[in-house]
Parts: sequence; C-alpha cells; structure tokens
Amino acid sequence: MSIEKPLRAVNELLLSLTESSVPLLTETSAHILSAGGKRLRPRLVLLAHAAAGGTDIDDVVPLAAAVEIIHTATLVHDDINDNGTLRRGRETVNSRWGGTFALLTGDFLFTKTYEIMTPYSRELNQILARASRELVEGETLQIKAARDGKIDQATYFEIISKKTASLFMACAELGATAAQAPQEWIDALRNYAFHLGLAFQIIDDVLDLVADPGQLGKNAGVDIAQGRGISVVADGGEAGAAVAAKPAITLDQDTAPAPLKEGLLPGDSLDKAIQKGHAKAKEYAQRAIDGLNVLPESAALDELRALARTVIERDH
Amino acid sequence: MSIEKPLRAVNELLLSLTESSVPLLTETSAHILSAGGKRLRPRLVLLAHAAAGGTDIDDVVPLAAAVEIIHTATLVHDDINDNGTLRRGRETVNSRWGGTFALLTGDFLFTKTYEIMTPYSRELNQILARASRELVEGETLQIKAARDGKIDQATYFEIISKKTASLFMACAELGATAAQAPQEWIDALRNYAFHLGLAFQIIDDVLDLVADPGQLGKNAGVDIAQGRGISVVADGGEAGAAVAAKPAITLDQDTAPAPLKEGLLPGDSLDKAIQKGHAKAKEYAQRAIDGLNVLPESAALDELRALARTVIERDH
Repeated sequence: MSIEKPLRAVNELLLSLTESSVPLLTETSAHILSAGGKRLRPRLVLLAHAAAGGTDIDDVVPLAAAVEIIHTATLVHDDINDNGTLRRGRETVNSRWGGTFALLTGDFLFTKTYEIMTPYSRELNQILARASRELVEGETLQIKAARDGKIDQATYFEIISKKTASLFMACAELGATAAQAPQEWIDALRNYAFHLGLAFQIIDDVLDLVADPGQLGKNAGVDIAQGRGISVVADGGEAGAAVAAKPAITLDQDTAPAPLKEGLLPGDSLDKAIQKGHAKAKEYAQRAIDGLNVLPESAALDELRALARTVIERDH
Repeated sequence: MSIEKPLRAVNELLLSLTESSVPLLTETSAHILSAGGKRLRPRLVLLAHAAAGGTDIDDVVPLAAAVEIIHTATLVHDDINDNGTLRRGRETVNSRWGGTFALLTGDFLFTKTYEIMTPYSRELNQILARASRELVEGETLQIKAARDGKIDQATYFEIISKKTASLFMACAELGATAAQAPQEWIDALRNYAFHLGLAFQIIDDVLDLVADPGQLGKNAGVDIAQGRGISVVADGGEAGAAVAAKPAITLDQDTAPAPLKEGLLPGDSLDKAIQKGHAKAKEYAQRAIDGLNVLPESAALDELRALARTVIERDH
C-alpha cells in the first residue's frame, strides 16, 4: 500500500487544523504548515503502521498530523531563539510577525496537538506526551550545554536522542501500537526510528555546516555559531568545546557562513568532522535497517529501508 | 470538607512535577511553581468537585495541579512578551534566565500538563485541551487588538472570556465531571466559574491600574501601556482606543506608573473606569453566586460563594 494518499489526507488535516477564532493564528499557522517540509515524521507514523500490519489508515492520519504539528511548534519556537529568518523556504513566523506572535503560534500549535490527541487511548497519549517533554528537554540541554561550552560526545548524543530521535521513536510507536502489532514488532520499529532519528540529526548538523540556506530552505551555520553540531561527533568534543568557548557570534543569516566556519575550526578539522559525521550517520542508518528483519516483508518495510538510505544521502 | 489538605497535596505534586533530566528546567520550573500564587484555579477544581458530591479527592489532585501548571506556563510566556520582571513576588523566569530559557520553561510546563492528564478520560482531556487553546487565542487576540487600537467592549469581553474565564470554567467542569455529577450541577458550576473568571479578570485589570508592584507581586501598569484593560469596560472603548493609539510606551517596571496612567487617561476618566469596573465585576460575581442554588447546600458551596466575594474585594 502506498502512503501517498494518506499523506495527502495528513496535509489536508494539517491545514484544516489551523482554523482559529483569531484570524492571526490561522494566518501564522497556515504560513508554516502549508510550507510543506519533508513530512518525515508523518511518513514514519504511516509506514510503521502499515509495516506492522495496520489497515485502518484513517484512524492513523490524525496521529501523523499530531506529530507534525508538535514538530512544527518546536521549529517556530526554535526560530525565535535562533533569530532564524528562513524556514521551509519561507520567512519564519518570528521574522514576519515578530517574536510575540511566533511564541503564541507555537503555543497554539501545542494546544492543537493536545486537542487532536484527545480521542486516542491513554497509551498513545503517553507515547506522545513523553516525546514532547523530551523534545523540550533536548532543546534546553543543547542551548545550556552550548552556552556553558560543555558539549562533549556523551552530551551531543543525549541532545540528539532527546530533541530528535525521541519524536522519531514516538512516530513508529504510535503507528505500530495503533496497528495493535505484537510487542516484538513495535520494539523493532522503535529501534529503527530511534537510529533513523540519530542519523537524520547528524546529517542535519553536517548540512548546517556545508549547505547554503537556499538549498536547505532554512538558515545555515546556526549550530556552529552556538557551539554545537557535528564537530563534537568527530573528535570527542574538543573542536566543539573550542567553538563554544569563543565569544558570541552574530551570523549574517542570509549568507552561507562558510568563511566563519573555516575560521572556527582549525586546519582540516571541518572536513574530518564531516567525514566522521557521515560515517556515524551511516552506521546508525544501518542499525536502523538491520533491526527490521523480525517484521514480515512488505512494501512498507521496503519503504522504511529506503527512507533510512535517503536520510543519509540527502542534501537538504 | 476542607480543601486545605488536598491543596497541600496539589502543591507537593506541583513541586515533584518540576523534576527533569535537565537540571536547568527543574530549577526554572521550581522557581515559578514554588512561588505560590493564589492557587485559585486548583481551589476551584477541588471546591467544584466537593460541591458536586465528589468524594475521591485523591483522583482530583492531579487535575488541580494540571490547571495550575498550564496557567503558570502561560504566565511565564506572557512575561516574555510583556518584558515582565516581577511575578508572584519573585524575579520572572525571563528576567533571571533570559527569554530563551523562559520560552523553553513554558513549553516544558505545557508538556508536563499533557503528561499529567494522560491517565484521565477523553472527556476530561477535551475540557482542558479546549480551554488551553482558548487561553492562547485570548492572549493573541488581546495583543493583536491592542496593537491595532481596536479594543472595544465586545472585544474586551471576548478577550477576558478566552484568556481567563475559559480556564476557570474548565476547572469547575473538571472537578464536577470527575465527581460524576448530574449535568444540571455541572452546568451550574460552569456558569459560576465563567462569571467568577470575568469578575476576577476585571478586578485584575483594575489592580493593574491602581496597585503598586510590591502589593501585586507582579509588574503593574502593563495593561494600560499596551492599550488594553479596564478602561474599555467603562466607556465603550473610547479611552482604551485612545491609549492604544499612543506610541509605544516603555514602562519603568519597578515603580508604580501612576503618573503615566494619569497622563494617558484624561480628566477623571481613570476614577470612572475603576468605579465602573468594580460595578461590572460585582455584577458578574453576583451572577456566579446566584446560579449555585440548584446545588445541595454544603461547606464547599459556601466556600464557592465566599470565593466570589473575595475575588471582587481583593487588593492583590
């Protein structure tokens, strides 16, 4: 079964959910939700559900929308903290409407997620509630550790586990649990999604270093300006700590900050960091794929495998 | 039955809920949650539950904590938007830890509310999810209308209904529904709480005009600086619109901005606004009390009546 049709249903639902009695919130929410994005998390919910033998796809569409909304809420809030100007190829909410309305838009999206989830079981709600909390904890940990200049490998792993892999894992768990799959299958899909999330975030951090904003559809160089990012994967945290120890850096958000990056990372350590990041992401993607063997072969399972390969090969 | 004991349990639960794997979030959350505050919303949950014949108070304590946490989350975010420096007699989270961590603290508290609520029924979750959304909508409407200089009486009523009365109403509904009360009792308690919320917010807006920060435990004069507040209740919106039309005002947050207020409201219109605000609040408090007659007499019912009187007589 292809997930393209339910994915369209997710997109339609996302847009209908922007409705508010306050027109400004409809406008800001629609601005960010209609901009598209990869919809990776909804895909993951739908594919995990199908791979776990689920058939009632209509029941899963709102779950897929819920994870995308909570993800979007955190992006809107992150863009306030990062002074981001570009997101999903569009002006950010904070850039266009200001920080106050961006903050309220993020809050509105949080409450929308809660509202969509109320018809679902306690079990499904617990999965998403925990992941939502971990998202916020991961983001906080990242900013705090970066400011303190204390991002080592263990901290980097904890950050990406919480801020990214936890929601990926929740996606797989939601889809598979809604399919009433056996625990062994749910565990395999959770394991897949967790490692996919780690691989995805490492590549995201690499792209933050090497891609230009037009290609990414969002600001680049943000991570390194905050002393976080891929470098810490590569060399046990030394380069990361060195970057973090520098005084606050103001990025020109509209240009690729390549010269800045070269100035911050001595010698060939940028290239090394990128190479090691890719190697690590590839390893995680492989671990994601390997664990899927306990599930019955299906088109959805193949798509999950393909997704893991796409994630590490992407350039935006 | 006195609610003092369960209220202590609420306070203990609130503090235990600040626990996070990220110490900074524990610290910021404990800072704001341990500062006390009136705990009006938890009281309302507990009293509505008791007045509706509920006996399993332990089951209601987490509900009472949940509404206080979501209320606190919105205060933390509002203080970012208002540049508030004082809240519940303490330095605000944004003032002490900066806007970024204040934003994340509010988000963390939102997710904590969601987590506490997961064991409860769909019905109870729907009540709180709707109220949470309305809170955010009310706050957005207020800021947008104030910036546009378009706060008239109808808009003011919509703002205070959404940003304050809706959560008050949810408190009563949560308590009474958890008590499995007959629909007539639930409706009466909802009606009580809605009008109590309106009265409470009008008095809050009056106090913003006349009280000093030390007495309030939070910054004063914030509302009028943003062109909102009690004045619009009094004269059909003209004074409110006049204030809103003035250029942006920078408040000295640590002093009572009385001279500022006098400069903004011509002649005796401040006194008139305050008098009319008090009259309106008294009317709403009376409506709140009147509707309670369908419920059986009890100590809790008497406390609800007393609460409505306290709300309009308070000076902080």
